[in-house]
Amino acid sequence: MLGLTLDPRSDESIVDQLTGALRDRIRERQLVAGERLPSSRALAAALGVHRNTVTTVYRCLVDEGWLESQVGRGTFVGEDLPEGEGAVESRFASGTSFDWSPWRTGHGPTPGDEMAEAYGTPQLADTISFAGGVPDPDLYPADEVRRLGRELLRGDDTLLFRYGPAAGYEPLRELLAAEAVRDGVVSGEHEVLITNGSSQGLDLFLRFATEPGRIGVATVPCYPGALHLFEVHGVRCRSVPIESNGLDLGQLEQALAGERPRFLHLIPRFQNPTGLTLSTLERQRVLALAARYRVPIFEDDYGPGLRFEGSEPPTLLALASSGGVIQSGTLSKIAFPGFRIGWLFVPRAIFGDLHEIKRCSDLGGSLFPQMVVYEFWRRGGLARHVKKVRREYGRRRDALLEALDREMPDEVRWSEPQGGLVLWLSLPEGLDSLELLPTAARAGVTYAPGAFFYPGGAGPAGLRMSFGGVPAERIAEGVRRLSVVLREASRTAGRRKARRSASDSSLAV
Amino acid sequence: MLGLTLDPRSDESIVDQLTGALRDRIRERQLVAGERLPSSRALAAALGVHRNTVTTVYRCLVDEGWLESQVGRGTFVGEDLPEGEGAVESRFASGTSFDWSPWRTGHGPTPGDEMAEAYGTPQLADTISFAGGVPDPDLYPADEVRRLGRELLRGDDTLLFRYGPAAGYEPLRELLAAEAVRDGVVSGEHEVLITNGSSQGLDLFLRFATEPGRIGVATVPCYPGALHLFEVHGVRCRSVPIESNGLDLGQLEQALAGERPRFLHLIPRFQNPTGLTLSTLERQRVLALAARYRVPIFEDDYGPGLRFEGSEPPTLLALASSGGVIQSGTLSKIAFPGFRIGWLFVPRAIFGDLHEIKRCSDLGGSLFPQMVVYEFWRRGGLARHVKKVRREYGRRRDALLEALDREMPDEVRWSEPQGGLVLWLSLPEGLDSLELLPTAARAGVTYAPGAFFYPGGAGPAGLRMSFGGVPAERIAEGVRRLSVVLREASRTAGRRKARRSASDSSLAV
Repeated sequence: MLGLTLDPRSDESIVDQLTGALRDRIRERQLVAGERLPSSRALAAALGVHRNTVTTVYRCLVDEGWLESQVGRGTFVGEDLPEGEGAVESRFASGTSFDWSPWRTGHGPTPGDEMAEAYGTPQLADTISFAGGVPDPDLYPADEVRRLGRELLRGDDTLLFRYGPAAGYEPLRELLAAEAVRDGVVSGEHEVLITNGSSQGLDLFLRFATEPGRIGVATVPCYPGALHLFEVHGVRCRSVPIESNGLDLGQLEQALAGERPRFLHLIPRFQNPTGLTLSTLERQRVLALAARYRVPIFEDDYGPGLRFEGSEPPTLLALASSGGVIQSGTLSKIAFPGFRIGWLFVPRAIFGDLHEIKRCSDLGGSLFPQMVVYEFWRRGGLARHVKKVRREYGRRRDALLEALDREMPDEVRWSEPQGGLVLWLSLPEGLDSLELLPTAARAGVTYAPGAFFYPGGAGPAGLRMSFGGVPAERIAEGVRRLSVVLREASRTAGRRKARRSASDSSLAV
Repeated sequence: MLGLTLDPRSDESIVDQLTGALRDRIRERQLVAGERLPSSRALAAALGVHRNTVTTVYRCLVDEGWLESQVGRGTFVGEDLPEGEGAVESRFASGTSFDWSPWRTGHGPTPGDEMAEAYGTPQLADTISFAGGVPDPDLYPADEVRRLGRELLRGDDTLLFRYGPAAGYEPLRELLAAEAVRDGVVSGEHEVLITNGSSQGLDLFLRFATEPGRIGVATVPCYPGALHLFEVHGVRCRSVPIESNGLDLGQLEQALAGERPRFLHLIPRFQNPTGLTLSTLERQRVLALAARYRVPIFEDDYGPGLRFEGSEPPTLLALASSGGVIQSGTLSKIAFPGFRIGWLFVPRAIFGDLHEIKRCSDLGGSLFPQMVVYEFWRRGGLARHVKKVRREYGRRRDALLEALDREMPDEVRWSEPQGGLVLWLSLPEGLDSLELLPTAARAGVTYAPGAFFYPGGAGPAGLRMSFGGVPAERIAEGVRRLSVVLREASRTAGRRKARRSASDSSLAV
């Protein structure tokens, strides 16, 4: 991050090293006036240092006049250098005087770099990462897809070079529609829109359905990609807890009542990050509430085919009779996320609106990946692959549950997902999974800290473990490492608490 | 459009055929309650009928209760069917009761289908199309790119399957940066963002810089992709004329003064649709005005390498010393638009903001096309290809200017672009190029009607001719066909005018 590296063996303290490095970046105009710095949390996670270290450095640079701190917005490079500090001259020295700060609208983007960078935490060579919620690249059907791609490129179809339809490659839309029509969820390909991954699906819907300051309803914890998009769109989020006993329907009703929300965002199947699945009954209740308060539902359905056991409840879209459900899908949790193939099932009444936003914003995605995926799907490769990864991820889930059962301290709890790629670990009070991340990384294990899944980063202790990316035989070792970190942290927290209550009682005397 | 076809040889009139077909679509719920219909202009252009035919049909269906007309918003399918008209039952019959109309926010998308559909006007087999402003697919370096693609797929790089960096494929960013650093316009790849075509570049900037109701400044005529995006973003557009004698700097100053605009959008090189290029002096004046009123400039630079003659003025980004210019680029006017490769050169101060919006909205584009383009570029294929198409498009421009000179009536005027793919034809008063399009299509020639290039479709008579897509030996015949249409239309307009002035004088008596 920012190209910074620290040397723990240096004579200079970490604080001094970091302060000096940031001063240099500003002098050399690698950081320029008005530029936003990473949050202290993100930079700390990226550098593997404690967050207090970074806040100390930032405070010191603010005092010296290098940085400016704006409450609630972050830390920025100052407009003027401290007196006596000449900038290193470059041909761009004069290229930075335009003041962009009034251009940052109130509902502007928030730095999602906390997330991105935590995954980039410097890691030991043999780190076991439960962090990313992505499928294992080693399982990709690479040979078959490469072969299909070469076949396509040997042909003479110039379609792959031309502007394609904004709604996506027609045969792929038809294939998706054919399956969905069988499931009774769409009436034909005129309700299918291919998107650049499922992120773009949610983004298009939010562009259609919301305006800055409007209200949306989502679960906590929630998929961070959705939380970040809510922020980009300036949506004020009402949160409904999802826990081991399901979605809190009382709180859901409260959230839907009052000023009418623009949408309810849900991941009913293998919810990310908890791994929980809503039962058919829960789904029916959710639909009834949404219908009563006339709020449309955005159903993120990333996990079809990834169920290891039990029966599959119908999707909200299949259960709904109101036309008020829009559903996103993706291949990125099954294989090759780099192809960026997602889709929306869009009620006919608003298909034209979403299609138009898609058309205006990027004129449609690249055709080649859509054509390759189409062939892979049509020839049965996708079905074979889904079967293979379901078996493998099921094995990994089993290995993870078994290891957690064996290794974890009593106060730690976890969800038991019936499919997907992730589960949720609840930590005892006093443990902060974000603060513990650098320690865990040093111990050779990483995860996604709970804070990433709560609006504003404020949530109860917890963390997400993805079993998708770790081979079954490495899982037990990863859990062992994590349990050591958690036990040690529990002891420290216990001692701290004991000291605090001791000092409380001395005060009380 | 809507899957409608009309049979001119039928006993039934065109109005009756169209009215019946739309009733059927609504009965069968292929068109559902609340759905927006194409504008009468767009549907007329798509079906090759006169616009009045469509307005008659719409009015009739509104009277019967099938459709609802909402002033300024368009024509929609009615919430209820006319009495006595039972819908054809389908499993989706009950799936359309959710009322989406309150979800259409005021600044929602406008149907860009006028544009898309006019290009889909039913055409004779030997139609000569000057309509699309895209490069000629027959010139694509298909063999070389197919070979490079196959080479990549034979390798074992799994990068193409994985989530890539949201900012784009690193080596491609570096390559772009290396060229741009040489030209003195960026300081390194940390100012380069790969986008899904240049449309997404403008979209990202607008998402950063504007809010609904804010003001932007752009030229008239203007690239329709930009106009549509301004509408999607709810930007109120102040227009500055660009004509054969250049940009109207007096009007530009007026547009920049007053309530501060959020941006000035310009295509200084081979402007689309006029083909005009701003001189260095004009560029300096524009920059001075933008700096005085502290308005950032979005420079759409689609045409580097496409100059046939004369010297290349520096880009606004190269001339600017204020850091207030952001520039978009694309390969889509050189080759393979279907690969969707565009980029932004972003001032360092706001790079993080735009990068974050890009990351949230689609997690980055597909890597494979970026990797292929990188190899093509790095190995010199792109430079060779640019040389080839420049020569060829230059030949086509020459053929077009020559044919226009020979064939066109005296009252028709045109621009003489020094490069690019398009030129602008000014028509005498009384001719409407949009209304003439079906006639022209029947005569075997098409073009882009002037209305597409003006906000709200209201502009002086004129049309855009793209010479990029027509082989040189077909150009003279295309111009001959167009000139016949224009001469005939002039005569009709002349007679109409004569009749009108005759009736005026009879009234005056």
